[in-house]
Amino acid sequence: MHKLIKLSRKFASLYTPADKLNHKSLSAADLSYFESILPKSGIIQADLSSHNTDYIGIFKGESTLMLKPTNVEQVQAIIKYCKQERLPICPQGGNTGLVGGSVPVFDEIILNTSQMNNIFDFDENQGIVACQSGTILDALSNYAEERGFVVPLDLGAKGSCFIGGNISTNAGGNRFIRYKSLHETTIGLEVVTGNGDILNTMDYPSRKKAAIDFHHLFIGSEGTLGVITAAKIQLSPKPTSQNVAFLACNNFDDILKILGLARKFLGEILSAFEMMDKQSYNLVSAYIPRFKKPFEKSYGFYVLVETLGINQTHDKEKMEIFIENCMKMCALDGIVCRDLKQMLDLWNIRENCGPAAARAGYCFKFDISTPHALYYKTVEDVREIVGDDGITIGFGHIADCNLHINIAVPKEIAKNVGERVNNFLFEYLQKISGSVSAEHGIGLQKKDKLKYARTSEEIEIMRRIKKAYDPAGILNPYKVLTIK
Amino acid sequence: MHKLIKLSRKFASLYTPADKLNHKSLSAADLSYFESILPKSGIIQADLSSHNTDYIGIFKGESTLMLKPTNVEQVQAIIKYCKQERLPICPQGGNTGLVGGSVPVFDEIILNTSQMNNIFDFDENQGIVACQSGTILDALSNYAEERGFVVPLDLGAKGSCFIGGNISTNAGGNRFIRYKSLHETTIGLEVVTGNGDILNTMDYPSRKKAAIDFHHLFIGSEGTLGVITAAKIQLSPKPTSQNVAFLACNNFDDILKILGLARKFLGEILSAFEMMDKQSYNLVSAYIPRFKKPFEKSYGFYVLVETLGINQTHDKEKMEIFIENCMKMCALDGIVCRDLKQMLDLWNIRENCGPAAARAGYCFKFDISTPHALYYKTVEDVREIVGDDGITIGFGHIADCNLHINIAVPKEIAKNVGERVNNFLFEYLQKISGSVSAEHGIGLQKKDKLKYARTSEEIEIMRRIKKAYDPAGILNPYKVLTIK
Repeated sequence: MHKLIKLSRKFASLYTPADKLNHKSLSAADLSYFESILPKSGIIQADLSSHNTDYIGIFKGESTLMLKPTNVEQVQAIIKYCKQERLPICPQGGNTGLVGGSVPVFDEIILNTSQMNNIFDFDENQGIVACQSGTILDALSNYAEERGFVVPLDLGAKGSCFIGGNISTNAGGNRFIRYKSLHETTIGLEVVTGNGDILNTMDYPSRKKAAIDFHHLFIGSEGTLGVITAAKIQLSPKPTSQNVAFLACNNFDDILKILGLARKFLGEILSAFEMMDKQSYNLVSAYIPRFKKPFEKSYGFYVLVETLGINQTHDKEKMEIFIENCMKMCALDGIVCRDLKQMLDLWNIRENCGPAAARAGYCFKFDISTPHALYYKTVEDVREIVGDDGITIGFGHIADCNLHINIAVPKEIAKNVGERVNNFLFEYLQKISGSVSAEHGIGLQKKDKLKYARTSEEIEIMRRIKKAYDPAGILNPYKVLTIK
Repeated sequence: MHKLIKLSRKFASLYTPADKLNHKSLSAADLSYFESILPKSGIIQADLSSHNTDYIGIFKGESTLMLKPTNVEQVQAIIKYCKQERLPICPQGGNTGLVGGSVPVFDEIILNTSQMNNIFDFDENQGIVACQSGTILDALSNYAEERGFVVPLDLGAKGSCFIGGNISTNAGGNRFIRYKSLHETTIGLEVVTGNGDILNTMDYPSRKKAAIDFHHLFIGSEGTLGVITAAKIQLSPKPTSQNVAFLACNNFDDILKILGLARKFLGEILSAFEMMDKQSYNLVSAYIPRFKKPFEKSYGFYVLVETLGINQTHDKEKMEIFIENCMKMCALDGIVCRDLKQMLDLWNIRENCGPAAARAGYCFKFDISTPHALYYKTVEDVREIVGDDGITIGFGHIADCNLHINIAVPKEIAKNVGERVNNFLFEYLQKISGSVSAEHGIGLQKKDKLKYARTSEEIEIMRRIKKAYDPAGILNPYKVLTIK
């Protein structure tokens, strides 16, 4: 993993000291002000290394001050002051982002929400929870499950990511197909904008709000317009039945046919549909010790299909009818899990595609989306660019068009391969109307790639919105898009 | 119905000639310009009565010109010209809105989208359809159903409402509980803003877009920021199994218990949960000839529960377990439909609550939302204000907190009762964080009630957004909120 980090850093470097914007540097007077509004425990100046470094260790900032407010009034006071003094701020939640969005680039003040973690309201009739933005996803999840509900979001990082960060990046997660996006499930937000205004759309009983629904602007804008301080989330009733199947075929078109059959025969209980190609599968079998072979033979493509429901007998029967039809029409092999252990073994194959690629060499990771018709062609076209210089694997949440391409290459040619793929892929995505970021966000890492994902007209609109909500350009100034 | 209209008009009147904004009046030169960009069939000057009058006949404008563009470029040319000349525009779809949002107030030019009705793209793998905004919901629905999908929206007005209007009002509909809101299912939009800019977020394969998701601003803003010209919609797979049950109890708390049991035992197949009180039921039984009594006895509350799924055997069994548990725990009576005829009979009871109230006297209709805990108390409190002067009924999509209160009163005291309820209800809703409009919009009718539904800070933000997208204030200038 360490080697990967060092290499990626070279490719990721976007800023030199000359790029530093004309913000003020922190002074003793500024510190005095912060001391006047926050308790001592909310002002951290020593040992900021882990807060300056991102989750995967690619990006490292040089902040000398982290503020940890406990309520929205403190956040407002901080932002108002920073706007007036032109002090840049990097909002930070659980710091689990994968694109460098939650760490400073230079000496931005880190505004960390970890002390804002109260779950302060729950409506058991409606299944609606309200909490501060620094609530850890897992804590919210446990809170919901104890009350018979589930949070509509399930991520690998759930043990440390914060709900505010999830909303700020519009995180999708494993069960997007079932529980939908945060645009649907976020009923309301409390936000402090870069202007220092508190916007609050929390105080409503449902998503049905009158007139302009402006809180959606803060979902997915990665802390560039405002700092989310609280959220009201619509939970879903907790399912009581889970089934996992694993199927194999030799042509990608058969994966799409299996998806069609899943929609037809599993319908409303379908909760995950995860494809992987033989290259992904082979890497997992080679590099992951816990790998359990599901089939005797090898195939071109594999898919993991999960259902969540409320009646195990019904769901099992639906799964059997589904598998039967797949075997008749397009699948070459298929199994349904008998127990939790086997379910975990199958999920392990899917979840280890990325980690296996990272063990196989230097690893480039692309989180993109493409239309279904071009989904696997994109993998093949990238594979052609890489050629025999590396191993190119494709896997992902295909029902949502989300595709992960990972490329494992020997160290000595990594830079060359990386440049070739970068030069090829982003323009390619633009041509096929794909997205350079399906769920990780733009952050720092893909900032110069935004132009390939949204039109220049769209980016111009974003700029205008940024100027309206953060006129001094103090919020996450080096991420997503910069205004000067 | 006619009597109702005349009376309501008195209460709805919001503008006098003195309120007319400082826009330009239409000149011969303006007409020449429109003739230069549109074919003859796109310029209508005669017989505009039906386009000047709203669906329920309450509101009537005095426009002398209706333009019917066929494409986005024509819409852009019209808006750019009107911005430059300060000519006001009233965007109009199927003109089925219930709050006067789609008819002119004075002499605004009607921009009618009925000639923009092409369904121009369909992705069968992803179930995504793209169409112009003037597509009739039923036409889109038929198109989808022929291809094995359903549009995630089902409304009484579906035979004449347009998808652009549905999106502009953020329509909820009968199966919101199942298919979610248009914020979730609208993948992208093409819009011409009041600035004359074309914004297009259609060109993506999924909801997962990078950076600021600004198209949500146009969902629910009732044509005050831009005119929607096309939309890309995520369809759902077509269900093959439908069940309807009808239950009775004597306490409102038991309705909430039945809702809890529906979530538990029907889970993912639950598609509608519609409550009505005995006053609603009694009015339907008295005024609707097709009324079929579902039970021998009478009760305090009734609820219609619908499921949609893909396996009739499973769904029927789930419904039976649900009913069994309801009867054991809180329901006093219950039936499950045996055939389509019986299903329609039950839906008729629910769907005729409003029409029955309109036949019982002058009728005031309130489309509000409240927290579950105060849902029926709101009806009781309004009933107390009305007293013996009228019949107050409560029914609605309770799972979404959506409540319809209808009040039928004798003609001679209607004005007095109407004023008493208006003076009471909107401030009451503000205190309990309810909404003055759950799904019909603000439009013209509730414009002076917006202040009770959103905070002054929220309205200030809306004003700023309005100024940014429609600086000349030419789009639907008298609706939702007015900038000068």
